[in-house]
Amino acid sequence: MTNTICPDAFLSPFVIEEAVTQALAEDLGRAGDVTSVATVPADLTGRAVVVAREAGVISGLPLVEATFRKLNAGVKLAAHTRDGVAVAAKSVLMTVEGNARGLLGAERTALNFIGHLSGVATATAAFVRAIAGTKARVCCTRKTTPGLRALQKYAVRCGGGFNHRFGLDDAILIKDNHIAVAGGIKLVLQRARAAAGHLVKIEIEVDTLDQLREVLDAGLADVVLLDNMGSAMLAEAVGLVAGRLVTEASGSITLTRAAAIAATGVDYLSSGAITHSSVNLDVGLDIEV
Amino acid sequence: MTNTICPDAFLSPFVIEEAVTQALAEDLGRAGDVTSVATVPADLTGRAVVVAREAGVISGLPLVEATFRKLNAGVKLAAHTRDGVAVAAKSVLMTVEGNARGLLGAERTALNFIGHLSGVATATAAFVRAIAGTKARVCCTRKTTPGLRALQKYAVRCGGGFNHRFGLDDAILIKDNHIAVAGGIKLVLQRARAAAGHLVKIEIEVDTLDQLREVLDAGLADVVLLDNMGSAMLAEAVGLVAGRLVTEASGSITLTRAAAIAATGVDYLSSGAITHSSVNLDVGLDIEV
Amino acid sequence: MTNTICPDAFLSPFVIEEAVTQALAEDLGRAGDVTSVATVPADLTGRAVVVAREAGVISGLPLVEATFRKLNAGVKLAAHTRDGVAVAAKSVLMTVEGNARGLLGAERTALNFIGHLSGVATATAAFVRAIAGTKARVCCTRKTTPGLRALQKYAVRCGGGFNHRFGLDDAILIKDNHIAVAGGIKLVLQRARAAAGHLVKIEIEVDTLDQLREVLDAGLADVVLLDNMGSAMLAEAVGLVAGRLVTEASGSITLTRAAAIAATGVDYLSSGAITHSSVNLDVGLDIEV
Amino acid sequence: MTNTICPDAFLSPFVIEEAVTQALAEDLGRAGDVTSVATVPADLTGRAVVVAREAGVISGLPLVEATFRKLNAGVKLAAHTRDGVAVAAKSVLMTVEGNARGLLGAERTALNFIGHLSGVATATAAFVRAIAGTKARVCCTRKTTPGLRALQKYAVRCGGGFNHRFGLDDAILIKDNHIAVAGGIKLVLQRARAAAGHLVKIEIEVDTLDQLREVLDAGLADVVLLDNMGSAMLAEAVGLVAGRLVTEASGSITLTRAAAIAATGVDYLSSGAITHSSVNLDVGLDIEV
Amino acid sequence: MTNTICPDAFLSPFVIEEAVTQALAEDLGRAGDVTSVATVPADLTGRAVVVAREAGVISGLPLVEATFRKLNAGVKLAAHTRDGVAVAAKSVLMTVEGNARGLLGAERTALNFIGHLSGVATATAAFVRAIAGTKARVCCTRKTTPGLRALQKYAVRCGGGFNHRFGLDDAILIKDNHIAVAGGIKLVLQRARAAAGHLVKIEIEVDTLDQLREVLDAGLADVVLLDNMGSAMLAEAVGLVAGRLVTEASGSITLTRAAAIAATGVDYLSSGAITHSSVNLDVGLDIEV
Amino acid sequence: MTNTICPDAFLSPFVIEEAVTQALAEDLGRAGDVTSVATVPADLTGRAVVVAREAGVISGLPLVEATFRKLNAGVKLAAHTRDGVAVAAKSVLMTVEGNARGLLGAERTALNFIGHLSGVATATAAFVRAIAGTKARVCCTRKTTPGLRALQKYAVRCGGGFNHRFGLDDAILIKDNHIAVAGGIKLVLQRARAAAGHLVKIEIEVDTLDQLREVLDAGLADVVLLDNMGSAMLAEAVGLVAGRLVTEASGSITLTRAAAIAATGVDYLSSGAITHSSVNLDVGLDIEV
Repeated sequence: MTNTICPDAFLSPFVIEEAVTQALAEDLGRAGDVTSVATVPADLTGRAVVVAREAGVISGLPLVEATFRKLNAGVKLAAHTRDGVAVAAKSVLMTVEGNARGLLGAERTALNFIGHLSGVATATAAFVRAIAGTKARVCCTRKTTPGLRALQKYAVRCGGGFNHRFGLDDAILIKDNHIAVAGGIKLVLQRARAAAGHLVKIEIEVDTLDQLREVLDAGLADVVLLDNMGSAMLAEAVGLVAGRLVTEASGSITLTRAAAIAATGVDYLSSGAITHSSVNLDVGLDIEV
Repeated sequence: MTNTICPDAFLSPFVIEEAVTQALAEDLGRAGDVTSVATVPADLTGRAVVVAREAGVISGLPLVEATFRKLNAGVKLAAHTRDGVAVAAKSVLMTVEGNARGLLGAERTALNFIGHLSGVATATAAFVRAIAGTKARVCCTRKTTPGLRALQKYAVRCGGGFNHRFGLDDAILIKDNHIAVAGGIKLVLQRARAAAGHLVKIEIEVDTLDQLREVLDAGLADVVLLDNMGSAMLAEAVGLVAGRLVTEASGSITLTRAAAIAATGVDYLSSGAITHSSVNLDVGLDIEV
Repeated sequence: MTNTICPDAFLSPFVIEEAVTQALAEDLGRAGDVTSVATVPADLTGRAVVVAREAGVISGLPLVEATFRKLNAGVKLAAHTRDGVAVAAKSVLMTVEGNARGLLGAERTALNFIGHLSGVATATAAFVRAIAGTKARVCCTRKTTPGLRALQKYAVRCGGGFNHRFGLDDAILIKDNHIAVAGGIKLVLQRARAAAGHLVKIEIEVDTLDQLREVLDAGLADVVLLDNMGSAMLAEAVGLVAGRLVTEASGSITLTRAAAIAATGVDYLSSGAITHSSVNLDVGLDIEV
Repeated sequence: MTNTICPDAFLSPFVIEEAVTQALAEDLGRAGDVTSVATVPADLTGRAVVVAREAGVISGLPLVEATFRKLNAGVKLAAHTRDGVAVAAKSVLMTVEGNARGLLGAERTALNFIGHLSGVATATAAFVRAIAGTKARVCCTRKTTPGLRALQKYAVRCGGGFNHRFGLDDAILIKDNHIAVAGGIKLVLQRARAAAGHLVKIEIEVDTLDQLREVLDAGLADVVLLDNMGSAMLAEAVGLVAGRLVTEASGSITLTRAAAIAATGVDYLSSGAITHSSVNLDVGLDIEV
Repeated sequence: MTNTICPDAFLSPFVIEEAVTQALAEDLGRAGDVTSVATVPADLTGRAVVVAREAGVISGLPLVEATFRKLNAGVKLAAHTRDGVAVAAKSVLMTVEGNARGLLGAERTALNFIGHLSGVATATAAFVRAIAGTKARVCCTRKTTPGLRALQKYAVRCGGGFNHRFGLDDAILIKDNHIAVAGGIKLVLQRARAAAGHLVKIEIEVDTLDQLREVLDAGLADVVLLDNMGSAMLAEAVGLVAGRLVTEASGSITLTRAAAIAATGVDYLSSGAITHSSVNLDVGLDIEV
Repeated sequence: MTNTICPDAFLSPFVIEEAVTQALAEDLGRAGDVTSVATVPADLTGRAVVVAREAGVISGLPLVEATFRKLNAGVKLAAHTRDGVAVAAKSVLMTVEGNARGLLGAERTALNFIGHLSGVATATAAFVRAIAGTKARVCCTRKTTPGLRALQKYAVRCGGGFNHRFGLDDAILIKDNHIAVAGGIKLVLQRARAAAGHLVKIEIEVDTLDQLREVLDAGLADVVLLDNMGSAMLAEAVGLVAGRLVTEASGSITLTRAAAIAATGVDYLSSGAITHSSVNLDVGLDIEV
């Protein structure tokens, strides 16, 4: 089968393997697909197509493939698109041929993957479209569904978004508590810079323009997170920064407000909702056995 | 700490252990909470409260507890409510005291759990409220987020809903493909009954009243799934069944339609959206370090 | 190779993978097959046949195949029968060709699987034969060897038996302690029915005919377990039930008593001994290197 | 609680942890003990005793303890004996107090462990008694139930037996195929001695006295396995060896023949049946809730 | 026990748990510490001290603690120093009291951890001392021992070094092959900047001053890796950069050359040898049983 | 591809699988090879050669192969040598062709394996060469890098050395503490012999010739470890033993002293440094993309 991974993103074979194994195992339980064993002959073969029942951006085809293969090593798969592509309603995404019990047993798990991840990708793409024409980018947060971070971050890339930190460990993000403990913005930035290696970026969260000025004076941060600011204040903040730092707007970033926020000149809009509260894309399987 | 598990549901210690380990590991990565190590003294202690920022039904407190304990064996926790309880906005759910680095490192993971599961419980409770006064019950489906089935099914119970099958293996559910392969409703039910053990229930999906009549004539099913029927047709179906089978309405079960569907006398309304497309409940952590 | 799984049962690829990996790992240890490395050239190939040294019902061929493949990806296998078939003594079950070190290293593990599972299947088949001509069925219990439940339940199906619950979670089985806590048979059944979803069956254990009458009066159970009753009492119980519940005889169900018990008209005879105390079937490997 | 591990044997905490987790997980499934959740109040406590319903040698108390603790961290346990002790019928082995749902959920898993392992220990002890008064010892083989090797070998020690190899890697055992490939007994022993490190013993299997003489002439083995010999031939073999090698009788070693075999002067009698075909010891749990 | 983790570094409880479990399991095997079981009474207790037999920087005390606890839950431990401290020869690092079999069984595993990690820390500290008085820092690479990356990177921090990337995923490092594929330094940097999120730093490797000028002209990198340059060329490179990028010297960074390299004004010296080829620090255990 | 495992040693497929998965996972992290995704087209293919940049004994080719395959199922590999072979500097060991992103992502992990294990093999081979012409053999100890025991013991075999115990469980090694607890050499040997099965060897450590005489008098040991003795004392010890036991010299066995020690007639020289403190062999990858 052709490679269906989105070319702009990495999807680890270990993540696929573990996620598919865990998901199939929780569906098969100890006794497996008792319905199909009871009603479908062991050697019957069939053919099925994976169909997007509504328009959206696809994410999850490599997991669909892996799910069918797990229950049926000899299954034949043909992909008709790849992750990251926006498709119309009724688009056929993949054709699958193989043992009928295997197709039926894998169906729900495969659809749960592609429905969820395409939901994240489609929600991301809606934000991307909303700010088209500006220089701003959409990014995600660490507010992800437990256990699904790598997959959801991948889906964000499929939808045209960018990734914020993957975890606590790949960048420094200083928040109010860190500032309070360290005794102020300048002191906390000095501590962070002294401790950080040369490949770790430092971002700091501010709520007010005064805090922002302190950050700019300290001169040690790479990125500033402008938290819960209205558009006017955001615009003023961007003006203050004047390109010296990367700017990120965060907090209550709804689809409705996105264009106005992007128009302030901010570099990034970050949204937790695209990962933790997206709606599944309706993808189904039409089987002919 | 008091037991915070919802008394009407089971939550396996293995599920908690595995979910919390996996979620913390994906957040800590290899280098851990570099921000707190850089800016917070190693032996500073602090106090924090878990607060529901909006009203909802709580689910996930045992996971919050386990998350904090994992990073700080000596943490002190006090729960102020338990899973399954509907709380008002600004309710304090739990108090946590311990090492400050430990609190900050566990914060996002703990909130991701309780936000997601309380979202599922709250969505379920909305359906339950919508059909209050009827004999109908709300239940979930196998359309769950991959890897989270046991937790989401638990959250459905916290919200007052009931659980459909946990997997392919704990009941027989005969769909159109099974019927087609077996050569008709009567034949498929006979095959299923012959193969099933005495502790396995048989449900069969029908789209039309004619199919329903065939099921009733065959007399071998326990439950009938009435798929994608309007309220009028559902009422007619329920009348035909006349208590001989448990009835379940499925397909496009929205909150708006729920009361009308329940009024038909159907026994169960099943919804995939409460698990796969619920919106996180906003739960936060207020830390004093 | 042809599919050797018993067509009436499900055998999860994950169960095979995990069981074979665990069993081979515990045999190979850290240093592996030191004998063969010391005495057999690295590139020698050989041929072997798996032979039933006594008559019995076969169960475990897919595990034998997986065991040989694990140590020798390129091994050639040909199955001469499939799981669930009764074979005569000296029957050749499978032919294996490949690297000699690989064959020798996998031999004992492969035989441990097929010897144990065929022992369970053969013990089950003996019960099935003993009650032939009645409408009764043989089933297993949860008295299984730790870690082997899914495999032993599969072997019971290979032997022509049926499966009782796979675990605590896929049906309700009310015993004396539950009845005592709830305050009586009627109350416990009401609690159970109120809590159970619509795809969960309820079985209740009784020791006396009076208890049985209470169960029948309550009218909420699906199955009744008639525990430790003699044949006469069992017959009377079956008469009282009169088809309103599925009946299961349990406790001291020996091969000697099986026919008399089945003659009472009971639906199921359940035996723990077929899983926890069966005798291995003698299966060997004849190697030509 | 007092340490209940048999003082003559090692039982790894990792083996206990893994075995108990796997066994409980396969019993709890995804939905857990639905019966107790439905019928037993969440905070009810109870008391139970583990009772040997028949006489035998006990093995498995540390696993019983770990099983109860897993579902109920605060359970109180008191052991009244330890592994390796022969007890009379109706002996109370352990007292357990704690949450009632926890006791009921752990019951079957705990009993499956102690029933199986005490069965192995009791079968071993029967052999040990049969040869009492001779210098011979009983030992096990690698014919164990898949996944249970470490536990079964421990149970053999509890029963007074000794352990043969734990796997392919901790000693060299040369069989007919190795001899054939290497071109004879002398050559195979030379190869083995050249390859083996100084902490690896070499055993070789012989079927005839001529083969035995070749082994003795070669002079490089530590142990000789006398396979499938009658008592007279065994006695002759032992005479030939004259103390130069350790001798082990193997093949069809039944309880009936054991005394006669031991009387030949052989050092070890090895039996596969004590591990792969032992009968569970009947151990039960009496609960007061 | 006091927290023995180096205050400047993060050490995940999951990394400790997994590393200690894996290491003890590979030492205990299936049969455990057969020597101690054979020769030491089951209930004997003892006392031991962990002693540095030579001077060095300590790393690994939390693993030593976890190792002893695993085999002896009730062990009493007292730490006399913490990770990151330079100690003299014969320093007592920790006192341990508990079951004698437990102490003996854990000894080698505990020492293997602290010997290896203190070796890495001590090698790092030697580099740090060699460049004392300059502004340069020592850092590690991804040339680590397989499976030990998180632990070795922690040991580098204990020794006063800084961490380069933890993996392929937490920063961009462009090497010659990437440049060649992309068609030149400017193009590759443009591609990288377009693809990278705002929390990912970009480093690029150059071998010549011409390449360095191209990097400076492109203006999109954060860090430049100056590979295999002599001191004179390095000094010229640092002069060219003039503080616009962070500079890292790499390739053949020996202890002998370190001071001269640091004197060039370079920001970082990176060494693979401190992780992949360090010599164990000699740490022993003195037991009194 | 041809089998590249050293013909004199066993390398478990499970060890390879687990080691490669763990090592790649720690390098790929959550976001994978962000550099290659950003700069290398998804479908570009390339060719690479694994080259020994210095002379040494090779160990680790099967892990190199598995590493490349993991990221690129369709990769083509050709081995030009096998483990255990001594190669000259600049020798091409393996050719690899496949997806360019896959080659770049696997590069460092593959080299970390072969560099480390060839380092161990080369260090071992140096000892073997140093004692050539004597009957002595070189062996390893349990002083291995945590988590790498099976691989390092394999590398010792590749280098021409022999393996001491793989763990605490495959032989008895009595040290000073065991002797003290048991009340003397004779008593400890009697206890050990009584407890040990017939396939377990007994080694005992002595520091003085008087202790050695006690061991010889007791007559129950198989091997004696002569600890920290000078060459003269070793020679005297070997003379005392007079072939009745296998002799092993241990403690401060440096390459410089090796020949003199071997000349004493001792059977084995054991070295911890060859596993815990060896220097990586410089192996690189030349890629053409």
